[in-house]
Amino acid sequence: MLNKEITIKTIYQKIQDNDLQDLHNREIVLKGFVRNNRCLGQVGFLSVNDGSCFLNAQVVYKVKDEKITSIRLGSTVIVKGRINLTIGGYQPFEIESEEVILVSQTNENYPLQKKKTSFDFLRTIPTLRMKTNTFNAVFRVRDSLSYNIHRYFHENGYVWIHTPIITANDCEGEGQTFQVVADSKHPEEYFNKDNVHLTVSGQLHVEPFALTYQRVYTFGPTFRAEKSNTTRHAAEFWMIEPEVAWCDMEGIMDIEEDFLKFVVREVRKECPQDFEFFYQRVDKDLKKRLDDFENKKFARVKYSDAINILKEAKKTHKFEVDDIEFGLDLGSEHERYLTEEVFKGPIFLTDYPKDIKAFYMKMNDDNKTVRGVDLLVPTIGELCGGSEREDSYDKLLGRMNELKMNIPAYEWYLDLRKNGSAPHSGFGLGFERMMMLLTGMTNIRDTLPYPRCYKDMLY
Amino acid sequence: MLNKEITIKTIYQKIQDNDLQDLHNREIVLKGFVRNNRCLGQVGFLSVNDGSCFLNAQVVYKVKDEKITSIRLGSTVIVKGRINLTIGGYQPFEIESEEVILVSQTNENYPLQKKKTSFDFLRTIPTLRMKTNTFNAVFRVRDSLSYNIHRYFHENGYVWIHTPIITANDCEGEGQTFQVVADSKHPEEYFNKDNVHLTVSGQLHVEPFALTYQRVYTFGPTFRAEKSNTTRHAAEFWMIEPEVAWCDMEGIMDIEEDFLKFVVREVRKECPQDFEFFYQRVDKDLKKRLDDFENKKFARVKYSDAINILKEAKKTHKFEVDDIEFGLDLGSEHERYLTEEVFKGPIFLTDYPKDIKAFYMKMNDDNKTVRGVDLLVPTIGELCGGSEREDSYDKLLGRMNELKMNIPAYEWYLDLRKNGSAPHSGFGLGFERMMMLLTGMTNIRDTLPYPRCYKDMLY
Repeated sequence: MLNKEITIKTIYQKIQDNDLQDLHNREIVLKGFVRNNRCLGQVGFLSVNDGSCFLNAQVVYKVKDEKITSIRLGSTVIVKGRINLTIGGYQPFEIESEEVILVSQTNENYPLQKKKTSFDFLRTIPTLRMKTNTFNAVFRVRDSLSYNIHRYFHENGYVWIHTPIITANDCEGEGQTFQVVADSKHPEEYFNKDNVHLTVSGQLHVEPFALTYQRVYTFGPTFRAEKSNTTRHAAEFWMIEPEVAWCDMEGIMDIEEDFLKFVVREVRKECPQDFEFFYQRVDKDLKKRLDDFENKKFARVKYSDAINILKEAKKTHKFEVDDIEFGLDLGSEHERYLTEEVFKGPIFLTDYPKDIKAFYMKMNDDNKTVRGVDLLVPTIGELCGGSEREDSYDKLLGRMNELKMNIPAYEWYLDLRKNGSAPHSGFGLGFERMMMLLTGMTNIRDTLPYPRCYKDMLY
Repeated sequence: MLNKEITIKTIYQKIQDNDLQDLHNREIVLKGFVRNNRCLGQVGFLSVNDGSCFLNAQVVYKVKDEKITSIRLGSTVIVKGRINLTIGGYQPFEIESEEVILVSQTNENYPLQKKKTSFDFLRTIPTLRMKTNTFNAVFRVRDSLSYNIHRYFHENGYVWIHTPIITANDCEGEGQTFQVVADSKHPEEYFNKDNVHLTVSGQLHVEPFALTYQRVYTFGPTFRAEKSNTTRHAAEFWMIEPEVAWCDMEGIMDIEEDFLKFVVREVRKECPQDFEFFYQRVDKDLKKRLDDFENKKFARVKYSDAINILKEAKKTHKFEVDDIEFGLDLGSEHERYLTEEVFKGPIFLTDYPKDIKAFYMKMNDDNKTVRGVDLLVPTIGELCGGSEREDSYDKLLGRMNELKMNIPAYEWYLDLRKNGSAPHSGFGLGFERMMMLLTGMTNIRDTLPYPRCYKDMLY
């Protein structure tokens, strides 16, 4: 094993690099599953995918062999043969088979057939849908995105902190949580605490680490128990939350833009075959949108200016919620109008009214707005939310009292503003939102290997 | 921001590379927290850590300034000054300060003082302990280990699959689980299922992906609600679970050994200052143990042979459990005796009796033992557990019936052996066990940023 056998990915790579000398007529043992099997006169063609990349290898065999012609889609095979370079042809190489071993035949009602199946149906078979073109590409891109997120932070000196999943920390204003109990008759017994639940964000837990390592981030699962059934919400999703000391709101926008452009660029570079498929079959506008994302400078707009733009816009555009005044918590329709129609690209919206943002955001001198910043992008709306954090103990305590929060539960967090504090800022990125942006998939369930949503979970 | 300012890490790196020309007399703005402040006659010395690496910068200042001499440990400062190279001296450079700005003074009863504090005490202040030498190094190594695990798999063509945290899958034999409920009055309402709990392993969920991508892995949090309070168990911990198609038990041992040696080597290379500290202050034998781990070939021993060795050993060695016969589920004392006393290094123990191993392991022809393999290492005992998976539908079903398992709940898993199956193998590595191996820390709580254990959780 250990990667020593040649893979389909390596063959395509060598052809692209014009590194052909040891390729032609090379012996190969190919193990994979069958994507297609058809005969033309005396020869048959098996499309075999070995999992190393999106594209298949075409295996040529003689049709005399009944055992091979009857191999069904999805079956697994071992092919022994030789590589035949056919550069300039419909595909740049084939495999001339010497032997095809059928390892596991699928049964006749195997659900993935050549006819097109709906995403809704495929969601009912999460153990098979990754064998279709679309989901094969989606989960490969998911891997590449995950890795390149880690790569960006690692190469830029950030420390990954595994903030806890189970927490007893209060998280007011963050919506419904899932309770965690070892024994339902004595829910507080296991941890000696009541109100133990699944995390909704690692931010508060990661902040102390930023005050030591300066640049830190989290990347882990987060949970919301909201009873909403939309294409954009899941009960379990992954979040990335960088936190940077000695950094203000302007600085965190610089980082956010640099980071997002890096990952979009690197993932596209790493998965070219998958993106070709998305451009052609999933979303015709995707390529242009991603090009713009990589190349255009993100606009920076104050919330109050955005309100004025929307007020003006409603003279000619119909909004569902059209009571547009300072203080409005913008809906998806407003966000998308701004990013899609007005700025035609990603925008940072800054300096929101304090009443619609979290307690920890740094107050501006006007005492009305906070140093919070959302990143809005076409087709998605809000992609990231971030802020400079309030670093004054007195101001933070004052704001928490105004909001009638449970101060003792937050004492550890408040104390960070006393003992060797520093200004700091951070943001949160919903991983699956980023997946939707990258792939053009429009339902969050189709970016998750096993989606967990309201009334909707398998295994 | 964006990494453009020079860090302490970069200075040490440049000195090590003998890349000195733009270093001497270079202007620097250093932001960090104070680890020490002392005066000697007319000059004072501040040790400042900027979070970029384990080592501090020594800042030299004139003691005339009362404001600087009174800066307490843990306070944050901004130092403006110039780098003064002192190669060959006690440290290779100092910073001659022009200005020291006190950003946040710690209060007088700040808990981290120069005197030595116990790990037990430090566990009560998880928001501060990473500012001590030990934990500063531990969490930096944790980051490096995480990254290099991803790096190994990525560079070897594995696809990272985010298996679900919340699951309704049965997991018999894996001990107690935490229930997840959105509403304790109607626990089954949210997902339309009862028995919704936190995952104990991603293995079953990742197997279907191995049958498509061939090489896959999980890396995420896992949970056990066992009511045990030991130094080796946590209720929440992270696991790595690679799964490889077309791979047998021998193959998975090859991968395991290659993988573990890679990460040990790369993490030590990436964090030399931190390991120097562990060698000197945490565990005097650590360096030799890690050298051996990297360089020695891991022994491969059959369980039945190990039993014979232990039977022989008990003539001269006292075991707590000394009823040593084929069928015994080895305890930590037996495992450690084998790896520490007999083989003096890591060993793979293979071909366990079926009755002490999980239902999914491939049966040997003797119908008595399975193709399961545990990796045992000195000081830790079991580090990884893995196996070749049973790929025969009939044998797997037979074994599950023998164990009186709830077959309908596993139908999706059984079906993987029917429709385009392939032989496959995998293993699981407890991330925190690996941390203990690497750092010499002996309590799992001291490898986790916010440990969650029985009766033991903060925030």
